[in-house]
Amino acid sequence: MSKPLILVVNDDGVTAPGIRALVNAVKDLGEVVVVAPDSPQSGMGHAITINKPLRIDEVHLFDGVKSYQCSGTPADCVKIAKDKILHRKPDLCVSGINHGSNSSINIIYSGTMSAAMEACLEGIPAVGFSLLDYKLDADFTAATVLAKVIAKQILDNGLPKATLLNVNIPNLKTEAIKGVRVCRQAVAKWEEEYMERQDPFGRNYYWLTGKFVNHDKGEDTDECALANGFVSVVPVQYDLTAHHAIPFINEVWKF
Amino acid sequence: MSKPLILVVNDDGVTAPGIRALVNAVKDLGEVVVVAPDSPQSGMGHAITINKPLRIDEVHLFDGVKSYQCSGTPADCVKIAKDKILHRKPDLCVSGINHGSNSSINIIYSGTMSAAMEACLEGIPAVGFSLLDYKLDADFTAATVLAKVIAKQILDNGLPKATLLNVNIPNLKTEAIKGVRVCRQAVAKWEEEYMERQDPFGRNYYWLTGKFVNHDKGEDTDECALANGFVSVVPVQYDLTAHHAIPFINEVWKF
Repeated sequence: MSKPLILVVNDDGVTAPGIRALVNAVKDLGEVVVVAPDSPQSGMGHAITINKPLRIDEVHLFDGVKSYQCSGTPADCVKIAKDKILHRKPDLCVSGINHGSNSSINIIYSGTMSAAMEACLEGIPAVGFSLLDYKLDADFTAATVLAKVIAKQILDNGLPKATLLNVNIPNLKTEAIKGVRVCRQAVAKWEEEYMERQDPFGRNYYWLTGKFVNHDKGEDTDECALANGFVSVVPVQYDLTAHHAIPFINEVWKF
Repeated sequence: MSKPLILVVNDDGVTAPGIRALVNAVKDLGEVVVVAPDSPQSGMGHAITINKPLRIDEVHLFDGVKSYQCSGTPADCVKIAKDKILHRKPDLCVSGINHGSNSSINIIYSGTMSAAMEACLEGIPAVGFSLLDYKLDADFTAATVLAKVIAKQILDNGLPKATLLNVNIPNLKTEAIKGVRVCRQAVAKWEEEYMERQDPFGRNYYWLTGKFVNHDKGEDTDECALANGFVSVVPVQYDLTAHHAIPFINEVWKF
């Protein structure tokens, strides 16, 4: 039996320490191929490149692991890996490890999770990993251990159809992590403002700043798990239909 | 009582004919303000701009309607409108009218829908409109009529909490449209390939091509409504949790 084929992708770019940690986490679980953006793509959401061509180049960044950089977004990397680089469907797609949280509503803006979602749309079991430390020199020791454990669970047990995982890891030493909790996405949000300044030519510019606010006190949320030292695992779907809202609209709308 | 405040945004850019049609659709329903990207942003998904500043400039493109162009993405336009341009919370955010479909899985990649979702996250009733004709000179006559009817329904009746609408309009004359159907998102997908060519310097480049394939035969889907000449209205949520998958994972995973 051939070894599982594992596609590694991220949104911080192929040179980020987080993707190196993820390669280390999964390299003993199968044949690993890296296809990652050639520059950081944070906040790209599920962007794809339609109106211009993409480039892919082989790079030699990881010992014994085939690696490519792509000029596109995280979702582009998955699409082009599938069509032009891999010669069979991967058994697993792992994305990350992101420098910074993708818990709660952050999933909406996350390039890390968009890559995993793109893989899920292709029927590939997929997971995004994020460490709650946005710094470039973050300590990925515990995250690497946990990513390996979770990737192995997916390879061994599969995932429900049309479901991917959003995994966030608290910024703690391995021995301080309490365990793993399967959760729902907390109903939290960003309260944002734009810093307003003037450029050297006297024109205004605006820079996004924000504060993450969680009003969701549920004990079954990812935010609660993380605050208590657990790794949060949120199963995620790409059906965005608010099924419960269909009868409401059918009742109240008049044409 | 003051008139409702209506924010108009899109992803095809402030000069697109589709946003002009949408301004015409809603201008009699309240006080309208346009904040739209200064260039086309199709396929941007829920991208936001974090690592560089934004610019906003007033433009004079619509008679009697305050209008601004922004250097960011559709989601950026909503954020900056709220913080820097509008002086009260809008009563409605309308996005589009997109040149081309955002039905089914296309919502994931859609800048039009990301703007509406960003407004929904801010507690603003929101809807994205798309016409099933991607051409720049598409005929927006029927779409304008339908957008007005639906915007008025939302202003009159509201929407369920944390729910926005994804409205797609078939490319038909007004009198040929059969009606409006509230639907679920069809489980359809893109089968994609990259066209591979060489640039003048002999380097390969890759351009995304694809075919939309719908294997979902449900009569309650947006694809079915559109194929039968109906406007599709899909209520959409930003909780991506696959709630049904939580017990599965709790049962089968071993640590």
